[in-house]
Amino acid sequence: MPRWKPDARQRLAVAALDLFTEQGYDETTVAQIAERAGLTRSTFFRHFGDKREILTAGQEMLSRLLAEGIAAADEDATPLDAVAMGLDRASGAMTDFNRELGPRLHAAIEANEELRSRNAMKSIGMAAAMTDALRRRGVPEAAAQVAAELGVLAFGLGYRRWADPGRGDVPGELVTYTRAAFAELRSAAAALR
Amino acid sequence: MPRWKPDARQRLAVAALDLFTEQGYDETTVAQIAERAGLTRSTFFRHFGDKREILTAGQEMLSRLLAEGIAAADEDATPLDAVAMGLDRASGAMTDFNRELGPRLHAAIEANEELRSRNAMKSIGMAAAMTDALRRRGVPEAAAQVAAELGVLAFGLGYRRWADPGRGDVPGELVTYTRAAFAELRSAAAALR
Repeated sequence: MPRWKPDARQRLAVAALDLFTEQGYDETTVAQIAERAGLTRSTFFRHFGDKREILTAGQEMLSRLLAEGIAAADEDATPLDAVAMGLDRASGAMTDFNRELGPRLHAAIEANEELRSRNAMKSIGMAAAMTDALRRRGVPEAAAQVAAELGVLAFGLGYRRWADPGRGDVPGELVTYTRAAFAELRSAAAALR
Repeated sequence: MPRWKPDARQRLAVAALDLFTEQGYDETTVAQIAERAGLTRSTFFRHFGDKREILTAGQEMLSRLLAEGIAAADEDATPLDAVAMGLDRASGAMTDFNRELGPRLHAAIEANEELRSRNAMKSIGMAAAMTDALRRRGVPEAAAQVAAELGVLAFGLGYRRWADPGRGDVPGELVTYTRAAFAELRSAAAALR
């Protein structure tokens, strides 16, 4: 049983991902998504501009939060400490709904090449947003790119562990997972030869 | 004037990228690509299974060469030295044709969201291929992921500098550029705090 009480927007997202998995992204219409969610087409259009926005809305927010966290870090914070701030901010905004959505998103991505491409774009977008935010702090290009990639890897690893439906225990907050993953990747990077 | 004498396969690739830029990926047909290249549809199908393969053929080869170079590194090579071997092998296979194609590919990607997604998939594919190859050498997961991302960044940075049409001098071999980029990123990673 999900621990979240989905609102209309969340019901639409779940219905859309399930339909993308079952019948493909291209083949799924807004009318079908609304019907599956038990809502009307006009309710759909109050929440999303089109079917594509169901996928992009979350990733735009994510990139924005990562960049804002980096920008808000103390002036003398190191690049990696700034990335840690970005991860904290983005992770802190993820709710039980995002956790429940994880396996559905994964299934939809596995089932559709179209969605695999879009998911790849999401990683690139996150990396670009963090690289930009670091550059604006005066971090040199190469260092900014490497630090941003560590952030992307940490978010992905932390999120996958948090959303893993196979885990039996109560998972707690995403931020615990992204912090642990980032610490792991920082050590790995520091030890690399 | 291009310095390469394009064969049929290369003429088809150039024609396809130009058409993708001018009129979009979805809107371009195999018949149009063949016509632009001054060849027949049946010649097209001797070289490529479909329009999509024009984009995927190169990236599959690239991922394979990166992984092969990593696998061929000395048993006691460090993870980063193994990645350097992968970069050398992949870079060494790129010819003047690949250099001339660079700006065309860039223009096509800028013009099409579809191609931006596919390009993002390519980076993910390269990273996955290198991560796998490093894991098979016994490199722990986190270190393998970080080392692979450094390799992806180095290949991209080196390739962009090599293929930059704005450069006046004779650019030499790609391998010079990817080596310099990888050295730059390794120092940046080592200095990150």
